[in-house]
Amino acid sequence: MIKAGIIGATGYAGVEILRILQSHPEVQIAAISSVSFEEQGIDTVYPNLYGIEERKLTHSDEVIAGSDVVFGSLPAGVSEEFAQKCVDRGAVFIDMGADFRLDDEAVYAKWYKQAYKRPELHEKAVYGLTEWNRAEIAKAPVIGNPGCFPTSVALGLWPALMGGLVKTGSIVIDSKSGVTGAGRGLTQNTHYAELNEGFAPYKIGAHRHTPEIEQTLSKMAGTQVQVVFTPHLLPINRGILSTMYLKFADGATLARAHAAYEDFYRKEPFVRVLRAGDIANVKNVRYSNYCDISLHEDAHTGTLIVVAAIDNMVKGAAGQAIQNMNVRFGLPETMGLTMVPPAF
Amino acid sequence: MIKAGIIGATGYAGVEILRILQSHPEVQIAAISSVSFEEQGIDTVYPNLYGIEERKLTHSDEVIAGSDVVFGSLPAGVSEEFAQKCVDRGAVFIDMGADFRLDDEAVYAKWYKQAYKRPELHEKAVYGLTEWNRAEIAKAPVIGNPGCFPTSVALGLWPALMGGLVKTGSIVIDSKSGVTGAGRGLTQNTHYAELNEGFAPYKIGAHRHTPEIEQTLSKMAGTQVQVVFTPHLLPINRGILSTMYLKFADGATLARAHAAYEDFYRKEPFVRVLRAGDIANVKNVRYSNYCDISLHEDAHTGTLIVVAAIDNMVKGAAGQAIQNMNVRFGLPETMGLTMVPPAF
Amino acid sequence: MIKAGIIGATGYAGVEILRILQSHPEVQIAAISSVSFEEQGIDTVYPNLYGIEERKLTHSDEVIAGSDVVFGSLPAGVSEEFAQKCVDRGAVFIDMGADFRLDDEAVYAKWYKQAYKRPELHEKAVYGLTEWNRAEIAKAPVIGNPGCFPTSVALGLWPALMGGLVKTGSIVIDSKSGVTGAGRGLTQNTHYAELNEGFAPYKIGAHRHTPEIEQTLSKMAGTQVQVVFTPHLLPINRGILSTMYLKFADGATLARAHAAYEDFYRKEPFVRVLRAGDIANVKNVRYSNYCDISLHEDAHTGTLIVVAAIDNMVKGAAGQAIQNMNVRFGLPETMGLTMVPPAF
Amino acid sequence: MIKAGIIGATGYAGVEILRILQSHPEVQIAAISSVSFEEQGIDTVYPNLYGIEERKLTHSDEVIAGSDVVFGSLPAGVSEEFAQKCVDRGAVFIDMGADFRLDDEAVYAKWYKQAYKRPELHEKAVYGLTEWNRAEIAKAPVIGNPGCFPTSVALGLWPALMGGLVKTGSIVIDSKSGVTGAGRGLTQNTHYAELNEGFAPYKIGAHRHTPEIEQTLSKMAGTQVQVVFTPHLLPINRGILSTMYLKFADGATLARAHAAYEDFYRKEPFVRVLRAGDIANVKNVRYSNYCDISLHEDAHTGTLIVVAAIDNMVKGAAGQAIQNMNVRFGLPETMGLTMVPPAF
Repeated sequence: MIKAGIIGATGYAGVEILRILQSHPEVQIAAISSVSFEEQGIDTVYPNLYGIEERKLTHSDEVIAGSDVVFGSLPAGVSEEFAQKCVDRGAVFIDMGADFRLDDEAVYAKWYKQAYKRPELHEKAVYGLTEWNRAEIAKAPVIGNPGCFPTSVALGLWPALMGGLVKTGSIVIDSKSGVTGAGRGLTQNTHYAELNEGFAPYKIGAHRHTPEIEQTLSKMAGTQVQVVFTPHLLPINRGILSTMYLKFADGATLARAHAAYEDFYRKEPFVRVLRAGDIANVKNVRYSNYCDISLHEDAHTGTLIVVAAIDNMVKGAAGQAIQNMNVRFGLPETMGLTMVPPAF
Repeated sequence: MIKAGIIGATGYAGVEILRILQSHPEVQIAAISSVSFEEQGIDTVYPNLYGIEERKLTHSDEVIAGSDVVFGSLPAGVSEEFAQKCVDRGAVFIDMGADFRLDDEAVYAKWYKQAYKRPELHEKAVYGLTEWNRAEIAKAPVIGNPGCFPTSVALGLWPALMGGLVKTGSIVIDSKSGVTGAGRGLTQNTHYAELNEGFAPYKIGAHRHTPEIEQTLSKMAGTQVQVVFTPHLLPINRGILSTMYLKFADGATLARAHAAYEDFYRKEPFVRVLRAGDIANVKNVRYSNYCDISLHEDAHTGTLIVVAAIDNMVKGAAGQAIQNMNVRFGLPETMGLTMVPPAF
Repeated sequence: MIKAGIIGATGYAGVEILRILQSHPEVQIAAISSVSFEEQGIDTVYPNLYGIEERKLTHSDEVIAGSDVVFGSLPAGVSEEFAQKCVDRGAVFIDMGADFRLDDEAVYAKWYKQAYKRPELHEKAVYGLTEWNRAEIAKAPVIGNPGCFPTSVALGLWPALMGGLVKTGSIVIDSKSGVTGAGRGLTQNTHYAELNEGFAPYKIGAHRHTPEIEQTLSKMAGTQVQVVFTPHLLPINRGILSTMYLKFADGATLARAHAAYEDFYRKEPFVRVLRAGDIANVKNVRYSNYCDISLHEDAHTGTLIVVAAIDNMVKGAAGQAIQNMNVRFGLPETMGLTMVPPAF
Repeated sequence: MIKAGIIGATGYAGVEILRILQSHPEVQIAAISSVSFEEQGIDTVYPNLYGIEERKLTHSDEVIAGSDVVFGSLPAGVSEEFAQKCVDRGAVFIDMGADFRLDDEAVYAKWYKQAYKRPELHEKAVYGLTEWNRAEIAKAPVIGNPGCFPTSVALGLWPALMGGLVKTGSIVIDSKSGVTGAGRGLTQNTHYAELNEGFAPYKIGAHRHTPEIEQTLSKMAGTQVQVVFTPHLLPINRGILSTMYLKFADGATLARAHAAYEDFYRKEPFVRVLRAGDIANVKNVRYSNYCDISLHEDAHTGTLIVVAAIDNMVKGAAGQAIQNMNVRFGLPETMGLTMVPPAF
């Protein structure tokens, strides 16, 4: 049994990891921590867990001391310290935040307004988009779990970019996210009466997931890729849907693209390329680790339209983190992650 | 491995059984049927199942022929025929509808406007409120799975009635249900634009679950019990919350009631008596087989207020049916049913 | 033209008054104030008002100095001071809070944990349930606008209690409110991801509207009335629906009750007694000043079930306040309040 | 007083026209018709109208016979007949459907799979985007009211295209609509349990509003414009938000664009160009005739991002139709349309 700990267990990503791990046959929760709720039972913060998981929230040191793997659900800029402590102890650290996602410290510094405190740690860290990076993840001491939007975008565009089916200029990514992506913190924007029956984009031209997206897509394309990325906030709890617009490369067609995607993802357990004509919908992946991808075209402008849907809290956060843990510890990749998305 | 079949697998209860059984370690789906979608893959009707469960919908005869247990998700009045065929073949029939819930044919005839076609079959059938009826369920050939509202009410009031904590007159039950209780059929009332931001009761003084509720409560109390039962339709997908008003019996108090409930349900895996002060909420039981019960009082009128919450599609339908199957086939009662309710 | 001012204009009741008054032909906004947003334009807090009403939020003294009528949307315990200043200046004060609703200071002190600071002011104040108290409202210097729940209950039960159609014991009131009733303040309970798809009661046996309800019903019945009152929080923005259970008096019937209600409310512009068979729904009164009432029975227990629906922000707050202003200033009672509820 | 009639008054656009006209000081409803509900009172179909507007639904001939202006809320292909009858009688016909929106019959035939029956009628008809076409509308016998998506797009892009601020190639329009756009008809996609908590695009690369959008934008740009247009279905009742991506023309900047938009729309009563930094949100225009427009840029790709929000049922349908009626009959353009969008 692997002993798992969670730092920041009362955040939305943290508690979702805790929930999913309840059904993981090879994991035992070692300890969980929270700065705000230390000493309280987790079920007093999340009453859905009453009678199921009532363990007390403790201090992060206790979590690190007792765990083989530590999930850190933390604000930007504070993960390095915990990662270092894990590395020192020989525990694997999986960071749910952004501190280990970017290769280039200058890019990190520009978008997150702070410098690395332990640059050497970043040499050891790997980017945890599981499908993309399995071999590296399998031996990494520190894993930077991808952002939710970048996961939907990278899985959605990988075969097209890799296969040269599209031009790499003028990529438009219009993404929409459920509100759990904004976390447990209270804001006017996520106050029920103000989000309900509303809909709008946010952080236009300025979302921190943009450099992460461009970093991954550029590697996939083998050339520098730039994108316009606009996130929107949906009045639903879970789910990200990215609608992506690309120009077909010369000779490429929707049929060829569809065949390429099906071939590319044939063996991936968590990526579903939909049948021609079907359209990805966040509804069909909720509470599961699937990424649904559908392909379409606007024939009169020569545009490939890729639609990718994930549950932002599962494949976009907790699920992928556990998938990475499975890879890292040599377990079957789907272990504990076979939740079937409900119809309603 | 138990071979399970589902007749009416494209109804909401049917597809929920199918979904939950995907994770049951001792069950193998034998066949599923649908009159409306015969020959289609279930995943074309429910795209959430794409890549997971794509089996074709077939004819009910095939389902019965290949199954040890058959779940029937059918309109009132048509279950007897399928139940008989199962009994003839030695298969267990679990009816999701109302045909085997009422003891008294006259009551059935009054509320469902039709007579039994096979009265002898009803002698063998048992009422499938698992916690109430385990011993009978364990050997029954036909199980009438309880209605969703009656499940919340019966579990919510059982200890109070059994323990003589309340008077049996003047019981008011004000219930609220998510919209999946109305099923897959299209109606103006469940058209998104008309239900959204709306809320109202329906079938006031005339809901068919009333006699089922009174039948069970009367047995629990050991005397004839009458209730006022008013269902309301909530603009949410899942969940029933019943707010129940009873007069304390002489000498009874909230503290005594709370102790009695805790004691009564201590060993029940799926009934959670909340801590004093906490309030049951449909949110905390969604996608799980739990029934949450909280107890309160209005001191100045001597009223015990019991709040019970379930997921109408799980403990109120598919989950309890599988719980009954487990009991019937000698499996651990919680097998395949340990889904943890999500926090969001 | 009447000059109207609003103290606490950025609260939900305050901004709703401001919105409705935009269309009132005999009212001119004099000034609006807010402690939190002083000096900001109201449209920067509520961007729906951009280009329509951009006036600056100022200090309460300015509001009082320039107004014939002042609406106070304030926390419990602070209205007296503003009311006194208005009385001193000869302006009418309409309190949206609870400070002038209760006749008995001891009851106020028990439920609100504080004493009156200016008891003499309460002698002059009247309870602003318009339909009930028109003559008094027409000449009052201070009007205590009713609570949202009490409005739905009082209008719903008045003819039954007045007409002796029901027994006055064992009244159960099960109410459900949209989330705007909780106001603009951020809480975990009203965080979108936590309220969405959830439903539960709150403050069971302990809601502060209970004494207000009992005070009004007792006057209507001409005898002391006690009720069990349980509020629930609905995942919708607007609307209160109260389902009320009463025992028929000897000889009373649903048909008699229906005739009595129709007769009683025939001339009321804002009370709609629905046709027999129709059921009140919050959907049908949203954004309007109507109170819809439907009558039903549970025949086998001799119970009259009254369902009353209002928009909690209009008839339950801002709309009724403006209705009271109309009465107080001798304007047609419906002036500025003829908003037609939308179908969707 | 203008006598107005509505054919298809039980459709969502029809009943919204009826609702708004209740408050129009210069309009009197002459008659309303419905094929499905002939002889019923409109309030039995829409109980929100009970006690307010209870007139009987009659036959279209009666509507035409008694009206100065007839609003037709009809399926594609059947408006011509009604339009002709109006023209014959000298009444103005305002078509809520698509039959009079396209200039080129071949384009209509391609997208709507039918030919014009009365081509000469189309010579007389004008396109009813009020802001764009006032002079023509003022004298037209037949007005083709614009589609909801095209209204948001045309108003959103007009100043940019007219002012040469953007390139006319590679325009991507990602639109999201509330569910009332799909109308009153029941479909699985608009069944509450299936739309709730879901989100997806539809009719990708194939929506019938595409040619209407291109027709208008091409006129505005003075050159042939092609767009990729993708509509999505939001789980909210009202509102369209279009996020539009265009490449800046050489020398153009966000600041210049913002100044140009403000200048262009300064005198328009229903177009609000938001302050720099604010973002258009469907929430802020609901139940009103406003179109909110905000401008943004993605600096690193030289992209102008225009966000336009309207209430699809008001500015996108009923409100604009009444605005056109006002123009046509020489009334103040805002008459009856000054509804203030609510904050919640």
